[in-house]
Amino acid sequence: MIIDIHGHYTTAPGELQAFRDAQLAGLTDPSAPAPTLADISDEQLRDSVERNQLAVLRERGGDVMLFSPKASGMEHHVGDRAVAAAWARASNDLCHRLGELFPEHFVPVAQLPQTPDGELDGVIAELRRTVGLGFVGANVNPDPSGTWAGLPITDASWFPLWEVVEELDVPAMIHVSTACNSNFHTLGAHYLNADTSVFAQLLQGDLFQRFPRLRLVIPHGGGAVPYHWGRYRGLAMRNGWQDPAELLGNVFFDTCVYHQAGVDLLTRVIPPENILFASEMLGAVRGADPDTGIAWDDTLRYVDAAVRDAEALAAIHESNARRVYPALDRRLAAQGR
Amino acid sequence: MIIDIHGHYTTAPGELQAFRDAQLAGLTDPSAPAPTLADISDEQLRDSVERNQLAVLRERGGDVMLFSPKASGMEHHVGDRAVAAAWARASNDLCHRLGELFPEHFVPVAQLPQTPDGELDGVIAELRRTVGLGFVGANVNPDPSGTWAGLPITDASWFPLWEVVEELDVPAMIHVSTACNSNFHTLGAHYLNADTSVFAQLLQGDLFQRFPRLRLVIPHGGGAVPYHWGRYRGLAMRNGWQDPAELLGNVFFDTCVYHQAGVDLLTRVIPPENILFASEMLGAVRGADPDTGIAWDDTLRYVDAAVRDAEALAAIHESNARRVYPALDRRLAAQGR
Repeated sequence: MIIDIHGHYTTAPGELQAFRDAQLAGLTDPSAPAPTLADISDEQLRDSVERNQLAVLRERGGDVMLFSPKASGMEHHVGDRAVAAAWARASNDLCHRLGELFPEHFVPVAQLPQTPDGELDGVIAELRRTVGLGFVGANVNPDPSGTWAGLPITDASWFPLWEVVEELDVPAMIHVSTACNSNFHTLGAHYLNADTSVFAQLLQGDLFQRFPRLRLVIPHGGGAVPYHWGRYRGLAMRNGWQDPAELLGNVFFDTCVYHQAGVDLLTRVIPPENILFASEMLGAVRGADPDTGIAWDDTLRYVDAAVRDAEALAAIHESNARRVYPALDRRLAAQGR
Repeated sequence: MIIDIHGHYTTAPGELQAFRDAQLAGLTDPSAPAPTLADISDEQLRDSVERNQLAVLRERGGDVMLFSPKASGMEHHVGDRAVAAAWARASNDLCHRLGELFPEHFVPVAQLPQTPDGELDGVIAELRRTVGLGFVGANVNPDPSGTWAGLPITDASWFPLWEVVEELDVPAMIHVSTACNSNFHTLGAHYLNADTSVFAQLLQGDLFQRFPRLRLVIPHGGGAVPYHWGRYRGLAMRNGWQDPAELLGNVFFDTCVYHQAGVDLLTRVIPPENILFASEMLGAVRGADPDTGIAWDDTLRYVDAAVRDAEALAAIHESNARRVYPALDRRLAAQGR
């Protein structure tokens, strides 16, 4: 079985964006009533993925995709707690419905209603609600301000969230949203910078001594981390930090690296048990390499070409995901898979 | 000949830091007189490198090192224009003297007195002064605020600097200094993030259409860029940007990547004519890999193991540097090299 652990609902019906637009309009007009999401039929939901993510998943031989709301659309920097809560709930509920409509293919992962003030009560409530609904993980934005105005994820202010993530036994994917600084292109710099920065935060901190069962997935192949693995080992030695390898009991990397050489490096540097297959399709990078005709985000090709050991490949395709996301494993097992 | 294009004077005599400390103390006491740098003898300067960078350079078979003031010490976020100007001048003058004391080994590269306000008159003046002294390049900080409060290097506010860099026919290495945000470890995240972010800025902009002879060196193996080369190609196609390969007439990457797998990726993805040998020793990462006994920053080993084509290897070792840094080539030629 091929499990893609990183997909976003980037093709939602226009009603969702209309709801968001009404939310944003309400920010400047406090007298406006809180908007409600227009009805979206099951047929609309089916249509929105059948010719998109589901078609591509099937075409490439994939079976299951973990599916969360669009990352750049989370926009945790906008609005207040109530706006964030309503936006996360509306977005998550659509992913939940897709998981019900296509139980064999889509498995929901939550957006959390984070806010720049770092308040966590509503975040934890939505995490509990969605996990109760069957969501198997959540995306946690290490920079809800969009300007890195907050504190590292190893700071004590984050601990209440990590306690609940650990308690619920779901992993968190560390995933930023839109950058609010013109120096950082959201998809071309901010995403990768966040992956890199968080890994360095973890190296310096003691998060996994405090939360030994916490599991974090760093997307986009870990940003710059595997490419600079020697740098991290050397920095750790020089600074008396833990060795990067010591993080690998709790940190996992996805395979969203869009060329063969990159995936070759990833699979050479990071042990196979820490790599989870993912494509983030249809995401930041769409279309095909004109030189080869291969879609940039067809990462299964790169992974299958890079990993020759059948056991390692099976781990990356399936068993690592089932281990890191136990609720996913239970869901698949209940389906007899 | 082996030319290392990325070295910093990280082992300066204590007098330099004492001068800096006096500068910083003066910031809170405006009545204090501007400090002066205590005399530093030629013997002190020789001592400061002979057992350090020079010994390591020789031991590893290197010949020439481009040598600039310590990057994390540039601290462009601190003080005002006068403080920045005096600090850059003092730091540069020591590198100049080292270039005079060891003309066959050290070639100076300038620190510029940038300030968070982005003012460029003093920056350009110091660039002209140092190039007049024989400096062959300069480090340009794309984030003088340390908090990314400024504008991308493709913004028009930077053009006066790029005009002069182009006119003087020296390349600029894009190198940040200390991060002023606890989310970004200076050496473990900020440096790599800056490399990545600037490349994405260049992809979106038209800097080299405006300044076709401008040459920029992105250090640390280009941050996350070569590892995500497919991502950049795909993003460029989708967004109608120029292809990353089109930047390669003006953008060069150094080899400061501290493990074999990383250098293998770099040399596989980036054409050899765009790769400049460098180690940044003695810099961020010191010491040796306990598994192999090889120093992390002994990048010559990795490069020599990665590149089997003799012509490509010679380009990376020497001729690319002489082409990208014409003033270096003239200096070496005058020495009969």
